[in-house]
Amino acid sequence: MEIAAEIEEYFDKLWPLNRSITGLDFRKSLEILDNIIPTNKISFKTGEKVLDWTIPSEWNVKEAYILTPSGEKIADFKTNNLHLMGYSIPVNERITLEELRNHIFTLPAQPEAIPYVTSYYKRQWGFCLPHLLYEKLEEGEYTVVIDSELIDGILIDGDALIQGKSEKEIFFSTYLCHPSMANNELSGPLVLSFLYRELKKQEGNLKYSYRFAILPETIGAVAYLSKFGNLMKQRTIAGYQITCIGDKGEFTYKRSRQHNSMADRAAEQFMKENNQKKIIDFNPAIGSDERQWCSPGFNLPVGSLMRTMYAVYPEYHTSLDNKSLMDFPGMQKAVEAYLDIINNIEQNYFYKSNAPYGEPQLGPRGLFRAISDKDRQEDELAMWWLLNYADGEHDLLTIANLSGFKMSTLIRVGSKIEESGLFSKLDI
Amino acid sequence: MEIAAEIEEYFDKLWPLNRSITGLDFRKSLEILDNIIPTNKISFKTGEKVLDWTIPSEWNVKEAYILTPSGEKIADFKTNNLHLMGYSIPVNERITLEELRNHIFTLPAQPEAIPYVTSYYKRQWGFCLPHLLYEKLEEGEYTVVIDSELIDGILIDGDALIQGKSEKEIFFSTYLCHPSMANNELSGPLVLSFLYRELKKQEGNLKYSYRFAILPETIGAVAYLSKFGNLMKQRTIAGYQITCIGDKGEFTYKRSRQHNSMADRAAEQFMKENNQKKIIDFNPAIGSDERQWCSPGFNLPVGSLMRTMYAVYPEYHTSLDNKSLMDFPGMQKAVEAYLDIINNIEQNYFYKSNAPYGEPQLGPRGLFRAISDKDRQEDELAMWWLLNYADGEHDLLTIANLSGFKMSTLIRVGSKIEESGLFSKLDI
Amino acid sequence: MEIAAEIEEYFDKLWPLNRSITGLDFRKSLEILDNIIPTNKISFKTGEKVLDWTIPSEWNVKEAYILTPSGEKIADFKTNNLHLMGYSIPVNERITLEELRNHIFTLPAQPEAIPYVTSYYKRQWGFCLPHLLYEKLEEGEYTVVIDSELIDGILIDGDALIQGKSEKEIFFSTYLCHPSMANNELSGPLVLSFLYRELKKQEGNLKYSYRFAILPETIGAVAYLSKFGNLMKQRTIAGYQITCIGDKGEFTYKRSRQHNSMADRAAEQFMKENNQKKIIDFNPAIGSDERQWCSPGFNLPVGSLMRTMYAVYPEYHTSLDNKSLMDFPGMQKAVEAYLDIINNIEQNYFYKSNAPYGEPQLGPRGLFRAISDKDRQEDELAMWWLLNYADGEHDLLTIANLSGFKMSTLIRVGSKIEESGLFSKLDI
Repeated sequence: MEIAAEIEEYFDKLWPLNRSITGLDFRKSLEILDNIIPTNKISFKTGEKVLDWTIPSEWNVKEAYILTPSGEKIADFKTNNLHLMGYSIPVNERITLEELRNHIFTLPAQPEAIPYVTSYYKRQWGFCLPHLLYEKLEEGEYTVVIDSELIDGILIDGDALIQGKSEKEIFFSTYLCHPSMANNELSGPLVLSFLYRELKKQEGNLKYSYRFAILPETIGAVAYLSKFGNLMKQRTIAGYQITCIGDKGEFTYKRSRQHNSMADRAAEQFMKENNQKKIIDFNPAIGSDERQWCSPGFNLPVGSLMRTMYAVYPEYHTSLDNKSLMDFPGMQKAVEAYLDIINNIEQNYFYKSNAPYGEPQLGPRGLFRAISDKDRQEDELAMWWLLNYADGEHDLLTIANLSGFKMSTLIRVGSKIEESGLFSKLDI
Repeated sequence: MEIAAEIEEYFDKLWPLNRSITGLDFRKSLEILDNIIPTNKISFKTGEKVLDWTIPSEWNVKEAYILTPSGEKIADFKTNNLHLMGYSIPVNERITLEELRNHIFTLPAQPEAIPYVTSYYKRQWGFCLPHLLYEKLEEGEYTVVIDSELIDGILIDGDALIQGKSEKEIFFSTYLCHPSMANNELSGPLVLSFLYRELKKQEGNLKYSYRFAILPETIGAVAYLSKFGNLMKQRTIAGYQITCIGDKGEFTYKRSRQHNSMADRAAEQFMKENNQKKIIDFNPAIGSDERQWCSPGFNLPVGSLMRTMYAVYPEYHTSLDNKSLMDFPGMQKAVEAYLDIINNIEQNYFYKSNAPYGEPQLGPRGLFRAISDKDRQEDELAMWWLLNYADGEHDLLTIANLSGFKMSTLIRVGSKIEESGLFSKLDI
Repeated sequence: MEIAAEIEEYFDKLWPLNRSITGLDFRKSLEILDNIIPTNKISFKTGEKVLDWTIPSEWNVKEAYILTPSGEKIADFKTNNLHLMGYSIPVNERITLEELRNHIFTLPAQPEAIPYVTSYYKRQWGFCLPHLLYEKLEEGEYTVVIDSELIDGILIDGDALIQGKSEKEIFFSTYLCHPSMANNELSGPLVLSFLYRELKKQEGNLKYSYRFAILPETIGAVAYLSKFGNLMKQRTIAGYQITCIGDKGEFTYKRSRQHNSMADRAAEQFMKENNQKKIIDFNPAIGSDERQWCSPGFNLPVGSLMRTMYAVYPEYHTSLDNKSLMDFPGMQKAVEAYLDIINNIEQNYFYKSNAPYGEPQLGPRGLFRAISDKDRQEDELAMWWLLNYADGEHDLLTIANLSGFKMSTLIRVGSKIEESGLFSKLDI
């Protein structure tokens, strides 16, 4: 699997689009991703009630900028779409600097950064500027132009399924709704899409079914739950929110609200085997759509494997969250990480010994060297762990945790033992 | 609330009295406290059986001293009532130094201190001396005078109730029975009494009822339980033994025998919020009347918030436990601490969300800024914690522990959410 | 008890014998031990099915050696029985050095040591040499002589019972099947045998019954379980595998598969009271016959108190595991350690207070000094712990753990309280 370059290619294609929770550029982005993960498009109409929310108007922008008293064009949406506050209403006016200031957002602590600001549910307009520029604005009359529209339209959720033998599902979700941002936008859809494409190659051999969702954050997840939440409650046995997974940082795992679900144990086993230490508890206040999946009415077992988490890196939600932070080989590794976790789940059997009284004799079954001497092989040691805990009560993830063995070792050795007839898999 | 000076005033009034488990000075002390906390006086007669015990005789003392061979008056009860062993029988005799020594108690390791010694249940007499003085006693004939009486009388428990909306009770207890000692005597009744007076101001607004008991230690608590134990078992949902809470030390919290009762969680939340680390487990061997409340037949959820605990400070049970150890502003803080703990209990609701599916929309309910940008306010973060855990299974103290938020924040934000109709309190 | 010298005497008698899982020297070893622990001999015939295994042939050896091309006798079984691979078939041949090499085992990393190698279940022959010697073997023709027999015979398990008042049993097991090795062979049978002899002196006063087994490792334990496993499941309330308990190391305790069985708590209390820190979890891969006792079908509460554990000391399974490693006074201490653990179990009562409401009055019952002063005695403190937890739910081992008191203190004080009538033992 050599996909780092391809990920970068898609990153570049998606970067300039003015994604928001609705609109043409959201759709264009989803269509670009269709080349990797062809999604069903599930539409919700403006005004439609979804759980506690209402689908907002669709928003599109042609251009937006400010003309200074001296005629200079600043805050041009064409230069950087972050200059325009998300969901700004149309405006074309001449106003004083004082009036203008009520509509401008800056970050005094990061004076070179353009902040990311939106106002989805209150109709207003605004521009976002580097504080350095803001401080130099001259007195006089300004012209503000926002050629946007807020119309009755649609909000779209995309999803795709890889069918396994079981109706039980592993769920992956990411959001697509921020304009030109990198770690906190494009890393998620890119990793999810390429994960889909890689996993798709295993279709036909998968025990579980795999559902992938690409949604506008919050409202898209709420809409999705309004339609599929009850079904998900029955089917979803593990899930992960994919976000902030493109930078150079170590992995971070955030537990699901259930804290010890199979999703958590499979991801924490990955973390342990890869010597990754950053494991944090569920937090409903700061996060992405795991907040929706883990809302108390659904309480789905959805965790999140990230790299440097939202809100803890200074570039978060600013124009500084850009390609310079990205690590494309690292994103490939993230895809591989999720494949490892999937494998941990696929292979997480309960075994039941057919010879639980005393240890079974391994030599005649070809499972053990006939000659006993001082050295012991890893596989032999693992075999005893598996046979002793093949009591139908300890799954492989638990045995991995107790014994310190890698899942790959237990899986390999477990298969050998199963072939010998010494134990049988239990249906999950 | 500025009560430190008033606490000191009462301290000075109570100090000289010769309190014991019965007697006139016990009654006088309780009457002085009536100015702050008017108590019902519950009397038990000498000889009355109370659980495993029998109410002893009432003890009163007029005077007690020793005359040395050279006619000097020493160990004078009028100078320091600790000189006389508690419950000494009357005596008026001329005896040799050798005979006298059998009746004298000293502390060789603290040669300047008068020890505190009693003999409630075996009839004998004794004097307590600084070891320095003891060592200088000359040979010759001594006159010992104890003008005491041990008569059929009464033992008195005082209690008071602040009635709340619920019959469920929070219980506070302290002892009154040591003569002139400070941390291990007067600090408890003073903090309890002023706590009563402050809490009384909230009467009418309290969810729970509050019961306060001022008792002679051990026998008074046993007597109280003999009368009210079964009722307490039904009603008491939390309680605290107030003792050793007058010195300059940090707070110490000793857990109830139940270890994770609401009493413990409310007090430990107080400790955490105030950066106090000394939390110890229940110990039935060393302690005050929590030993009675937590005896296995009752097992009431009674912990104890103290400052420097009995038995760990060298002045304990000696004449050195005196006003010089006291910190009156600190005692005021102790009253405030217990009020904080009470508040933790009063406000410890279970909430049940009315919109548990996905996150509810906060903007239209005025609970959230319409504009989403990089900065988040503490209250907004707390709101998400509350909404996510409003599942009827996590009380506020648990959410405080999970989230790290202060109870005051959760209470304030919880009220706002409740007003919005997004969740409802469950009856406790 | 002064038995160190006697242990050494038996060590010397047993050392030269060529023990294996069957054969004359196994029987001789068991007969020598009969002087300390007279065992029932339970025979299993070659070919008999025992659980998943089959009893192998009986193996006996008269002589075995190699003649070098220059006529030198090397690898002589008479000099060190480890030279011969266990269960070698008879051979008398002239072979080249190249052919010989296929039958020789050495330890390149420990070039002076003879390794310990066996092949019970695959018929072959072999010699074990110090690697230093192996490297110097000259080219030419070698004569190999193994005068052994593999015949239909018997495998023997020895066991003995000390009958107590209850049918419930505490089980001790050790193995006897390695030729001349010390810590990982003779230490186990010696400590078990002398433990038996010491405990036998208490017969008639024991609450529980004590069963001792001396078996060939693995196959002997499997055979034993095939006969008695179901009975053991009903009767065995605690047990210990005795092995690797002869060297100078600190104690190591390996927990049973149940992790918190009474066996574990009694042994861990011993460890704590003796300031021994090495406690490890159950491990089914590396160990002795606790692997059989703790196989999932039986899951008996069997742990193992050792000194330096198998596989962690470099001399393990080589000719270097010899008398020079042994500490005979230390083995005596090990016997005493197991007696302490037995005492922890024998005395591990649940008490039920007859005065659970408030504290009972101790003075009139002679349990407490009549005079209350500053100093408290250990026994008085222990008394309060015992009385408070005499609720029928906390056994003495639990109270020891909660309170920090030694079991001996709790037992002594518990008896005093029991005599006073304040509480009663519950039947286990």
